[in-house]
Amino acid sequence: MEEKVIEIKDLLKAKRFSEVKEYLKEINSVDISSLFDELKGEEIILIYRLLEKEKAAEVFTELDSDIQEKLIGVLTDKELKDVIDELYIDDAVDLIEEMPSNVVKRILKHIGAEDRQIINKLLQYPDDSAGSMMTTEFIDLKENMTVAEALEKIKKIGVDSETVYTCYVLTVTRKIIGVVTLEKLLLSNLDTKIADIMDQSIIKINTLEDQENVAKMFDKYDEYALPVVDKEDRLVGIITVDDALAILKEEQEEDFERMAAIRPSEDTYLKTSVFTHIKNRIGWLLILMLSATITGTVLAKYEAAFEALPLLVSFIPMIMGTAGNSGQQSSTIIIRALATEEVTLKDWLKVLWKEIRVGFLVGIVLLIVNLVRIYIQYKDIQLALVLGLTLIFTVMVSKAIGSMLPILVKKLKKDPAVVAAPLLTTLIDLCAIVIYFQIATTLLTGLK
Amino acid sequence: MEEKVIEIKDLLKAKRFSEVKEYLKEINSVDISSLFDELKGEEIILIYRLLEKEKAAEVFTELDSDIQEKLIGVLTDKELKDVIDELYIDDAVDLIEEMPSNVVKRILKHIGAEDRQIINKLLQYPDDSAGSMMTTEFIDLKENMTVAEALEKIKKIGVDSETVYTCYVLTVTRKIIGVVTLEKLLLSNLDTKIADIMDQSIIKINTLEDQENVAKMFDKYDEYALPVVDKEDRLVGIITVDDALAILKEEQEEDFERMAAIRPSEDTYLKTSVFTHIKNRIGWLLILMLSATITGTVLAKYEAAFEALPLLVSFIPMIMGTAGNSGQQSSTIIIRALATEEVTLKDWLKVLWKEIRVGFLVGIVLLIVNLVRIYIQYKDIQLALVLGLTLIFTVMVSKAIGSMLPILVKKLKKDPAVVAAPLLTTLIDLCAIVIYFQIATTLLTGLK
Repeated sequence: MEEKVIEIKDLLKAKRFSEVKEYLKEINSVDISSLFDELKGEEIILIYRLLEKEKAAEVFTELDSDIQEKLIGVLTDKELKDVIDELYIDDAVDLIEEMPSNVVKRILKHIGAEDRQIINKLLQYPDDSAGSMMTTEFIDLKENMTVAEALEKIKKIGVDSETVYTCYVLTVTRKIIGVVTLEKLLLSNLDTKIADIMDQSIIKINTLEDQENVAKMFDKYDEYALPVVDKEDRLVGIITVDDALAILKEEQEEDFERMAAIRPSEDTYLKTSVFTHIKNRIGWLLILMLSATITGTVLAKYEAAFEALPLLVSFIPMIMGTAGNSGQQSSTIIIRALATEEVTLKDWLKVLWKEIRVGFLVGIVLLIVNLVRIYIQYKDIQLALVLGLTLIFTVMVSKAIGSMLPILVKKLKKDPAVVAAPLLTTLIDLCAIVIYFQIATTLLTGLK
Repeated sequence: MEEKVIEIKDLLKAKRFSEVKEYLKEINSVDISSLFDELKGEEIILIYRLLEKEKAAEVFTELDSDIQEKLIGVLTDKELKDVIDELYIDDAVDLIEEMPSNVVKRILKHIGAEDRQIINKLLQYPDDSAGSMMTTEFIDLKENMTVAEALEKIKKIGVDSETVYTCYVLTVTRKIIGVVTLEKLLLSNLDTKIADIMDQSIIKINTLEDQENVAKMFDKYDEYALPVVDKEDRLVGIITVDDALAILKEEQEEDFERMAAIRPSEDTYLKTSVFTHIKNRIGWLLILMLSATITGTVLAKYEAAFEALPLLVSFIPMIMGTAGNSGQQSSTIIIRALATEEVTLKDWLKVLWKEIRVGFLVGIVLLIVNLVRIYIQYKDIQLALVLGLTLIFTVMVSKAIGSMLPILVKKLKKDPAVVAAPLLTTLIDLCAIVIYFQIATTLLTGLK
């Protein structure tokens, strides 16, 4: 990448434009768009003008919105019209949503009345719905067409379609009755009827479907494109796998952030301001800090115990840490299993039984290791026993809470990844402290 | 899904097979394969035999390996040959890798000598390499062919190719000089030369490339298929986006598990045995437990302080919790940013400076909230000050450590998601305890 930037800069400086043009042919449009991050304004526009029309549009859609805005600022009306003509409707909608209003005005001037109407309609769908993701440029066929007629139609309207690889067979009322791939068409006889080769097992998406579910459907069915239908079951658009992949990535990114008690953000790390970083993190930190004071208040009730035996305090980090880690293991596994639908709500008893067994056996191992360590370090068999028993019970309880809480939260129709984490920490810390000091005050004779 | 299972079971019981056959046409092969999970052995084989040949093979590849094995057990030689003939080479390789040796023997009997040779070669590539993922069934063209000749070739060999949508233009020594999509072919004039329409910006994958990098390339370039080349730069296979998506999901799943201190596993939650669950979780729990004893040992050094003022102990959960959460926020953000290459090693100073500012300002907010709370609860301004100062310093230190540790681990060429977590917890807990008690013993007059 570095060398490419230097090479292009040198060629531009030497005004060897035809060489730049040849050079650009061998670079993928995604890589060209990342080149732009390293170049200055005048270099960007120079290179952009050396690209072939189709590739220029490809590069344009890959650019960050701030560079798109700058570029639009220097393009002539003719050049802007060329870009917009090449954009698919869904990319045009994304562009309009991201640009400031003066730029949007200039863009809309170059869009035909018909397309403008479609764009307006798409802008009205809720933000995270299938309707807002879809494009209206698809290929529709009739069931009594022959393969030859279908191929003819594809050749005629294909250049404006987002994909020519999946075609939809519609009735007169625009209901889908079949799907046929270009591969199937190409490998069939020219006089075969579409009805005879179309696939009737159709997976449909509703316009109001949440984008997360849309992404999951692509993941499940491995399709290149899926059709979107309105309330009356009429085909109104399609979504292609690349849009689904982007959503899948965004949603997973959000899950990671939620797991680390951060409010999900859309920008990259370095581009996000300090203030926004603070805003995204302070909420959970405050909630978790205040909820930890509950544990502190309970801990204060055992003051007499650790006044009598201050050594007890030094094991608090280990016990709370082990309880927290055990619980987090279980909750992460169950949150993921719920998300991928490997585990459903009705499996709760199976899960609980499994986690209790896992917790018990893991606890036994930790108990043995601790018995040995504490006996060696302090030669105190009573203390070793207290800590061993505490570990077994806290690990079992933590695993039970960690696995059941996400299921309960899901049952209440909330997102387990969001609601479970802070509640989990507080509950588990509390339980660990109570278990520890109850066992200690019961078993240690010096504390009675 | 539930209703479909019941309906099919009823139809089967009533022996209304032709209705089942019609019914199956309207169900997607992915859904049929999940139906199989709910059916008994004899029902599965009945339904399988009612499927059209092509769909049967599609359903077969979607099945879990235990059901595949059972099914192969009851298929006749003729039926088995039909399945295997329909499989793409990469799916055949996966199947052979998962079946027990007696089944593999039966499968290999039905594979032609040429394909057997290819399969043997693919089996020799390292497990997680591009070579082991690829398929050798692709369409290659020559640059002096016309579009008509190319389409003719696709029609002839297309049925055996994993995809007909991306074709590769090769020299006589099988080096790639261009890529041309079926869309482009179909929309061009029949007498155009391939050389004039092929795309020369080629993204290639090496056979030994790690599968994680392969998945990242698909994610970056949004391609439907990518070519795989050997050491001599000759095209030997292709990988399609569906395989990349599966890898991407698997790798992300693993990252989630690592973040929760679990050894990544491949099976689903309910199918994993208790023993395996324990094996996957006990390692980190032991390491984290033992490392927490270091914190405990340091804590024991301050025994005199909390003997003099036992109330100090009750704030330990809050301070360690806040430190841990602050650090985890930073490390998660940086681990993700490193993975997506938003942040690179050379950005470390920018990151550190940002995290220190974020930590300072977050600390100020937490300080104020705590000052108020502790003053109200205990009417002790000195104690409130100790806790406030402790929070500012621990949050800043935690964020600095949390952000720098992943970068350091990456610099040492290890995986930040694996190595950073346990080290992080131990380091941050230690720092929090030391900061807290140093500030307390310095400021609180009663402790001097």
